[in-house]
Amino acid sequence: MSKKPKIAIAGVGNLGWNLATKLVNRGFSMEQLIAEKSSRRSKFAKRIDADLIEDVADLKSKVNLLFVCLPDDEIAPFASTVPNNEVAVVHCSGSTALLSDIPNPTGVFYPFQTFTKFFSVDWDGIPIFIESKDKALYKTLRKLGQELSMNVLEVTFEQRKAIHMAGVFGANFTNHLLYLCKKLLDEQKVPIEVLKPLLEETVRKAFDHGPAGAQTGPARRNDTNVIDRHTKALESSPDLAEFYRLFTNDIIKEYNS
Amino acid sequence: MSKKPKIAIAGVGNLGWNLATKLVNRGFSMEQLIAEKSSRRSKFAKRIDADLIEDVADLKSKVNLLFVCLPDDEIAPFASTVPNNEVAVVHCSGSTALLSDIPNPTGVFYPFQTFTKFFSVDWDGIPIFIESKDKALYKTLRKLGQELSMNVLEVTFEQRKAIHMAGVFGANFTNHLLYLCKKLLDEQKVPIEVLKPLLEETVRKAFDHGPAGAQTGPARRNDTNVIDRHTKALESSPDLAEFYRLFTNDIIKEYNS
Repeated sequence: MSKKPKIAIAGVGNLGWNLATKLVNRGFSMEQLIAEKSSRRSKFAKRIDADLIEDVADLKSKVNLLFVCLPDDEIAPFASTVPNNEVAVVHCSGSTALLSDIPNPTGVFYPFQTFTKFFSVDWDGIPIFIESKDKALYKTLRKLGQELSMNVLEVTFEQRKAIHMAGVFGANFTNHLLYLCKKLLDEQKVPIEVLKPLLEETVRKAFDHGPAGAQTGPARRNDTNVIDRHTKALESSPDLAEFYRLFTNDIIKEYNS
Repeated sequence: MSKKPKIAIAGVGNLGWNLATKLVNRGFSMEQLIAEKSSRRSKFAKRIDADLIEDVADLKSKVNLLFVCLPDDEIAPFASTVPNNEVAVVHCSGSTALLSDIPNPTGVFYPFQTFTKFFSVDWDGIPIFIESKDKALYKTLRKLGQELSMNVLEVTFEQRKAIHMAGVFGANFTNHLLYLCKKLLDEQKVPIEVLKPLLEETVRKAFDHGPAGAQTGPARRNDTNVIDRHTKALESSPDLAEFYRLFTNDIIKEYNS
């Protein structure tokens, strides 16, 4: 593969949009985007000087690196339609195995962050997990990753699956806890913003001291008086009560038994 | 009450230590600390130019503002032993009502943050929730709070209880989610640090867009393929599986029904 790969990206969702934007900002040439046409996508393609195509059959022959930023279940079917056996096919999923059913060199390039279309993310420090059995492609992904972040790491599929699961627990479930907090506070007309300094400090502490060392609160102290009062207060909210019970019992079990 | 109150603090735990440190840094005079003697506490008292006493009976008569930074269940019993009916008795608890069984002016001063002894916290922006039926004391607490943070807010006990509960969900439970993440990652020898950028971005997004707008992940998309795969992967970890099930079902219910 040439020093500067000729890149195409399939899928312009949250990740595809952010990856294309960042690669172009870092000086890579984006040849083609593969997605259903829309005026918004055409504008985006124009802005990053890429062609927007709907069918991977129209992939330029000079493209030698194709990122697949599609939903998990569409990755393998899409890959099997790539017309050119030389182009490296690299997916960006945390929970999909390295593609092995196609003759192309294949790889994984999994940036571990939550992306939102139209909002550029700061890539510095984002871990990018890579995998490939193809030596040249591995080197290309490593080098390309280091242009985006200083935190490129090789992991196995087993590790990547655990990381993906930790992302669900750490990000999706944490966000849902904040959703439940908002419910609690809305009822009393208290703005959710009052929680922000506490959450920032909680995250900082968990990573500075480790989550076990940073745990505080009534369950950690096994403070049955406060826990009983809380349980009573949540009687009218069975949903919240179930979360309270599960967390409290698990924390007590981990720290006090 | 004079312009600069003469302050004493009962309890030198995580909060008492941080409150005393911050008040002294902001130029307030700390007359006495009330706590069991230890060489560590004596050193601390000396450093902030306060006397360390064990018995509130020895409270100086010139002290006119007494912060009670004790565990919830010790607050009322302690307050009933304060020897002087003029000193304002102010507790710092999120889940304890304004004291009403003593003749003294009483108040609440609840800084909403997680504190750790020996580590000074940045107080800027920390919400401080205050309450008092005594007009002069209310003004004093408001003014004093504004010396520590620009975010002093008057709330009712009902509101304060909801805020405290949101703190348990938002901070204690979030930290426990990170503990579970560490379990998942430890098994695969992946350092927990890889999660940090994702967590910081999750918190930022939840407060910028609101947690409902920021929710992502398989449950949000009701992606049964991924959910089934995750459920299978967690079969050998019944504890984690229970958290996964509760969060996933609740997110599906909230967003997809």
